[in-house]
Amino acid sequence: MIKWTKAVAMTATAVTGLLFIRYRSRKKRSEYLANLHSFRPTETLRVSENDFAILGTFEDNQKSAVLVLEKLPFHRADRHLWLQCLTLRPNLQNDIYASYRASVSQEIEPFKVSLIYPATKEHIQKYSEQEFYIVRETPTLYKAITEPYIASIPTSKLDWIYNILEHKSESERILYEDTDPESGFIFLPNSKWCHLNKKEALSCLAIVHNRSLRSTRDLTADHLPLLCKIRDACLKVLRERFQVEASSLRVYFHYQPTYYHLHVHFTHIKISNGVFLGKAIFLDDVIYSLTRQSNHYKEALLTYVVGKSQHASLYADLVAANAMS
Amino acid sequence: MIKWTKAVAMTATAVTGLLFIRYRSRKKRSEYLANLHSFRPTETLRVSENDFAILGTFEDNQKSAVLVLEKLPFHRADRHLWLQCLTLRPNLQNDIYASYRASVSQEIEPFKVSLIYPATKEHIQKYSEQEFYIVRETPTLYKAITEPYIASIPTSKLDWIYNILEHKSESERILYEDTDPESGFIFLPNSKWCHLNKKEALSCLAIVHNRSLRSTRDLTADHLPLLCKIRDACLKVLRERFQVEASSLRVYFHYQPTYYHLHVHFTHIKISNGVFLGKAIFLDDVIYSLTRQSNHYKEALLTYVVGKSQHASLYADLVAANAMS
Repeated sequence: MIKWTKAVAMTATAVTGLLFIRYRSRKKRSEYLANLHSFRPTETLRVSENDFAILGTFEDNQKSAVLVLEKLPFHRADRHLWLQCLTLRPNLQNDIYASYRASVSQEIEPFKVSLIYPATKEHIQKYSEQEFYIVRETPTLYKAITEPYIASIPTSKLDWIYNILEHKSESERILYEDTDPESGFIFLPNSKWCHLNKKEALSCLAIVHNRSLRSTRDLTADHLPLLCKIRDACLKVLRERFQVEASSLRVYFHYQPTYYHLHVHFTHIKISNGVFLGKAIFLDDVIYSLTRQSNHYKEALLTYVVGKSQHASLYADLVAANAMS
Repeated sequence: MIKWTKAVAMTATAVTGLLFIRYRSRKKRSEYLANLHSFRPTETLRVSENDFAILGTFEDNQKSAVLVLEKLPFHRADRHLWLQCLTLRPNLQNDIYASYRASVSQEIEPFKVSLIYPATKEHIQKYSEQEFYIVRETPTLYKAITEPYIASIPTSKLDWIYNILEHKSESERILYEDTDPESGFIFLPNSKWCHLNKKEALSCLAIVHNRSLRSTRDLTADHLPLLCKIRDACLKVLRERFQVEASSLRVYFHYQPTYYHLHVHFTHIKISNGVFLGKAIFLDDVIYSLTRQSNHYKEALLTYVVGKSQHASLYADLVAANAMS
């Protein structure tokens, strides 16, 4: 079903080194070549702005495969290559405006294809279309639904956070630490920020030492020293270490967060992931609200987005409680 | 510089009808063919996730041309076409995960190219890379910079809003009106929502009749009846007319807004434009804050994103006042 470039065979024969490695490598490659060639689509899992996820199988096997087709980003340096490799077909012309549909020659590889095989139920769910809903969470709804949901999550899910706080993991990545057990925190690059020299991809986390704090709902004016220290110290580190000013940064909590141990996100203003209304709350807004009223987050109506599969059990509880309008 | 498909010539000869039309059509097409063929890039204006904007000229002319290369969305119906037209080159394989780089055959036209020629300074600016900055606006900063900036905008910019309020334009599009001069408003589809049967593109506006209200900064508890009527009446209209529930909608103000006459956005939860932190504030949050404290928005620290060219004069004033950290 899918054509292959000669490069595959060339890469295969270019493998050098021990005969054993060569043998294993060839065997693996030939297997996986044969398998992908016989990929049979069964269902479209998701069509989004950037990717196309297809469920399928292979001729000789009943196991599921997830094939994901993604658009790759443009690169400034490729301008001439793109202009040379485009074939245009006129679409419309109106005054000074013209538009065309364009195909590209084989020299350009503008897509990435990923294969997960065999794929588990979780893989399939991850790449499936998801419905989202707005929830207007009153304190009563928090007590009745969200807090029990948080309590039901096994604490083992937080082991990776505790490893960071106990210097068992990622200790070499720590940018700043305040060791106070009540008002202290660790500040480090998020795993998403791969190249620390790429300022526009800047993504860092401040993780508090106080393990009783799960989300913004737990905050009162008592935590203002912690929050102000996080803001001031981390912005200073980012300015001094990476020459990134506060005016280029969004500093915020997620509600609902992915994990329920209080943490603050610092991301470059050009990053659009996870900063939409219904997901993110500015740290400055939290500080302002708590300064005005200590129990603001105990009493406030908080509006958030719930994903039908991403927060499956929370979603189910909300529906059961008739909390979704 | 850019290759052409034979289809262009075929389309040209396929034009039938009056000789006169045929002649004009051919002339136009040949001119514009010749021009685009000789496109010479001079500068990369912008490289974003979805587009690549290039400034250039044509051999025989010194006027500017803006060429924009955009990725087109995937379509569910094209699954088989995509699978048949991909050529893969292996990238990596690790356990159950494999990835490939992919090129596509000429049968697929996955890009759109737009040309603006001759392009004005404004066109060039529109497609140029823009820097954004976070501004933490205190009431003092609002009084000193933002309010005078708002006052400096010619009121003629609001003529299109007044036309709507006076039923001179778009009156056939009105979904709901409350005519009270103090607490009334008009609710209608935003011009962005072209196909009213496409629920996932739902985008509506509630525009208040009270012309003294410019932004959320002007709101006090006195406006709670207005805000609650907007929320309740518009959500009811959307539920009854379009079968879209409140749980599928984001309802928010922009701060800074594009125009300074108070209005509320209602957009489908799947729309990601204009709903990020530093641009949008939930109507529910505004109602909650004003319920707690009448002068909340007179006193609050509001954090917003300013675009160096989008809000050029506001940005210049903020820099001059040393308000950007």
